[in-house]
Amino acid sequence: MKRFVAERRVEFADCDSARIVFYPNFYKWFDRGTERLFASVGLTYRAMEERHGVIGLPLLETGAKYLRPCRHGERVRLESWVDSWREKVFVVQHRIECEGEPAVEGYETRAWAALAETEPRSMRAVAIPASVRELFL
Amino acid sequence: MKRFVAERRVEFADCDSARIVFYPNFYKWFDRGTERLFASVGLTYRAMEERHGVIGLPLLETGAKYLRPCRHGERVRLESWVDSWREKVFVVQHRIECEGEPAVEGYETRAWAALAETEPRSMRAVAIPASVRELFL
Amino acid sequence: MKRFVAERRVEFADCDSARIVFYPNFYKWFDRGTERLFASVGLTYRAMEERHGVIGLPLLETGAKYLRPCRHGERVRLESWVDSWREKVFVVQHRIECEGEPAVEGYETRAWAALAETEPRSMRAVAIPASVRELFL
Amino acid sequence: MKRFVAERRVEFADCDSARIVFYPNFYKWFDRGTERLFASVGLTYRAMEERHGVIGLPLLETGAKYLRPCRHGERVRLESWVDSWREKVFVVQHRIECEGEPAVEGYETRAWAALAETEPRSMRAVAIPASVRELFL
Repeated sequence: MKRFVAERRVEFADCDSARIVFYPNFYKWFDRGTERLFASVGLTYRAMEERHGVIGLPLLETGAKYLRPCRHGERVRLESWVDSWREKVFVVQHRIECEGEPAVEGYETRAWAALAETEPRSMRAVAIPASVRELFL
Repeated sequence: MKRFVAERRVEFADCDSARIVFYPNFYKWFDRGTERLFASVGLTYRAMEERHGVIGLPLLETGAKYLRPCRHGERVRLESWVDSWREKVFVVQHRIECEGEPAVEGYETRAWAALAETEPRSMRAVAIPASVRELFL
Repeated sequence: MKRFVAERRVEFADCDSARIVFYPNFYKWFDRGTERLFASVGLTYRAMEERHGVIGLPLLETGAKYLRPCRHGERVRLESWVDSWREKVFVVQHRIECEGEPAVEGYETRAWAALAETEPRSMRAVAIPASVRELFL
Repeated sequence: MKRFVAERRVEFADCDSARIVFYPNFYKWFDRGTERLFASVGLTYRAMEERHGVIGLPLLETGAKYLRPCRHGERVRLESWVDSWREKVFVVQHRIECEGEPAVEGYETRAWAALAETEPRSMRAVAIPASVRELFL
């Protein structure tokens, strides 16, 4: 199964008054993790639109458990992978380690979405092609 | 039960390329909702520190379900309240309506935390005084 | 001359490890100030597009001087106004006071922009109608 | 003269409704650029505090010119360096190229600051040691 791993240090711009990562920023990291995971198998946003008419991966549900604070200067490792596929929906799992210890476990449930023929223009979930799932094997 | 309600429009600075609120921003709204809810009963961060030695409300778990996109210019209403209290931990529930329709349902599980006598300096959950809970009745 | 004024307290979500507003957030406040100033004279983004074919107010230049830190819990007041108009460009001035003292002086130089007939689709500055300027008198 | 260079692609999380980098995010990139430039010569925040009693690099002034939009998916290159030193103050220059073209030119004027012996606790600018400047040669 394809996984995307990013490593970096916690920076000043990530932190709140407690000198730890401000928790909404973890969700920005999740969003980046998903984008980079998909790009790593050739599915940049541009490619998804051109090849599949998919204009986005809208969120149905997200969540995270915080096991350990991530402090300014500490080394973090973010790992992202698609944990399950349903017909039109998939779950991306994200695991953050900090200084080698489990720090955050999170997930995003997202739809594979095309442009809906409605007003106002919005997205609708469509079936995920088998060829897309196979890219992540 | 005390509730905090804020109303505003979705602004450019909230939105992503799909012209809807970028989902990590909902968690920033949750964080603000919690701060304002506590301040509304007299528990500003400063008051919590001075009166209770509490230096923060660290997160144990957060999550959200997205029922409807919140588009640029639409009117949103955020309602926040403490849904349950345990000995050292509590759950803040957040409900966002957009143009009168349910849009986001989220929660934050937070600890009532004092400074731990450890190195590196960190927080530890402590018992929530009954007098604090009563402020939210 | 039309001015838009917003008042609030500095919140946890605004602050960095020094417990003061993280400076890029001031620019988000400027962006919001401009949007609210324009909306206050009837020029929401939607109205600008429908009435004037204007799809955005892209930035040419921004800047800010920091005179005093804005600390968590302190009361801030943001005032925004259009300071000068040129043919296709205007300057929005922003002044932030904190606890009654000057804290930040900033500006945004923005263009009045329509969709360009180019590839990739981009914006081009167009002449600002006199009727628009008059709304701010 | 020491320079710090970072290269990446513009991601979804960086962008606004116009599918270009939301301008306050450039200032976050500047903040990261400065932190990484200083860390690259051994001056992490922790090292600055331990060796020099410096608890931050507070901003006196910032600014940026936007020469070209940075679109989702485009390749950006950020270069950061200290352009000038005064007794207690220095200017960090930041240059962003996008797809090989000049996109943003920005600067941050920052102080070298220790803890002031005042109430409320705040920072005061102190003289920058020659040994610090030499690290950037």
